[in-house]
Amino acid sequence: MGSSATPDMAPREVRERIRSGVFTGNTSGFASGYVQCNVVILPAVAAADFLRFCQLNPKPCPLLASSEPGDPALPTLGDIDIRTDVPAYRVFRDGALAEERGEILDLWQDDFVAFALGCSFSFEEALHADGLEVRNVSEGRNVPMYRTDINCTPAGRFEAHMVVSMRPFSPADAIRAIQVCTRFPSVHGAPIHMGFPERIGIEDLARPDYGEAVTIAPGELPLFWACGVTPQVALENAGLPLAITHSPGCMLVTDVRNAQLAVL
Amino acid sequence: MGSSATPDMAPREVRERIRSGVFTGNTSGFASGYVQCNVVILPAVAAADFLRFCQLNPKPCPLLASSEPGDPALPTLGDIDIRTDVPAYRVFRDGALAEERGEILDLWQDDFVAFALGCSFSFEEALHADGLEVRNVSEGRNVPMYRTDINCTPAGRFEAHMVVSMRPFSPADAIRAIQVCTRFPSVHGAPIHMGFPERIGIEDLARPDYGEAVTIAPGELPLFWACGVTPQVALENAGLPLAITHSPGCMLVTDVRNAQLAVL
Repeated sequence: MGSSATPDMAPREVRERIRSGVFTGNTSGFASGYVQCNVVILPAVAAADFLRFCQLNPKPCPLLASSEPGDPALPTLGDIDIRTDVPAYRVFRDGALAEERGEILDLWQDDFVAFALGCSFSFEEALHADGLEVRNVSEGRNVPMYRTDINCTPAGRFEAHMVVSMRPFSPADAIRAIQVCTRFPSVHGAPIHMGFPERIGIEDLARPDYGEAVTIAPGELPLFWACGVTPQVALENAGLPLAITHSPGCMLVTDVRNAQLAVL
Repeated sequence: MGSSATPDMAPREVRERIRSGVFTGNTSGFASGYVQCNVVILPAVAAADFLRFCQLNPKPCPLLASSEPGDPALPTLGDIDIRTDVPAYRVFRDGALAEERGEILDLWQDDFVAFALGCSFSFEEALHADGLEVRNVSEGRNVPMYRTDINCTPAGRFEAHMVVSMRPFSPADAIRAIQVCTRFPSVHGAPIHMGFPERIGIEDLARPDYGEAVTIAPGELPLFWACGVTPQVALENAGLPLAITHSPGCMLVTDVRNAQLAVL
């Protein structure tokens, strides 16, 4: 992958390599400084409910763009063809993972709607730029994620318990992390909880439901952010005949700068 | 006191009643919406060091205004005579409390400089306006304050361990409280610590060094703010022949609106 794309490559160049099938892996660290997105693709009949689910649950589902029905373009995010510009796709049939593949040209339907949702890569970059240590990055692990007992507000067939990601910080750094992430509401924003995992239904921080556990040092507080895996859970729960997402870590790379998402 | 001033009275009216000696008590809740200040009065020979101490330690010592030497006016804060417009003064001689009195007309020196520092009343009002419960207010107690082992940066003869005030919140409310207070850097700003009192040298939250203990419910985090008692401790440590402050809770009421202190 290192020969096919580099961190300082422009987002358009990364997408070209993805589109041509040269780049098929994890996009973390590539086209640094630019927004990467979670992707959900649904038939139009379910799109209004999903849109409403996002609007009702903006912290786990921060919607950055959605396509016209049948149109694979997302022009506000760049020169994108959503059928080819994600490194790896997951195809769900009746709510179950059926297949993973590198493009969805032959699966595309003229009633499909594509949704692009903000991702934690953006706020992790802001935390790092502020001089804060992001533990999953410094330990080279996928961020630990946990199912909680927090109910998202349901919309039609879409419902889910919120999934959260966890990053530990010293108290002073935790206060700063809250300030930094508050500037970025469209990429999950400020944490939704801190300090007491059992209060949100998490039994053991050492056993995440997704990703990998990270070290929590004595005197550190675990901070919990609403996570973009939540809409994927809602999608599985909805049991649609056909739906498509990106594969975890294999995100849509856009032309929007992370800095442009800051509200101040 | 209720007959002499009311919460909806304009700051100028409250000051007039203080100046005439009708109002001599705690100013909490009066002239609501307006900034109240901690007051320190020093001879000019020590003023430069104290000013530098404030600039080096802006979280415990957020300086809002200082007077010209010998001039008892603070025109940026209102039509103020600092010799009469504080309900109760404390007079320190050689660093020790010598006297409490209602005006300092006969003590005033032509080399005195008056300093007005931001106070937690302003951010407590912002927290309340945001719908958050401020425990010391809801329990009708003076906020609990604690000496810490955090060293302020010294300046000349001024040095102190930071004093902090503590307010407990649920994790979600704690995150919101950090956001709200971040808007008000000139009245102590965001908390400086949370969660682990022993990490900043506090042995027992039930035994504050100043003020009164408040209830901390299970699942609540104690949040710690830099406190305006810190400069008073620095003043005592400096052991000046003569210095004057307000009495705790008996603040200088100004014409500046709390909302004007918000940086955004």
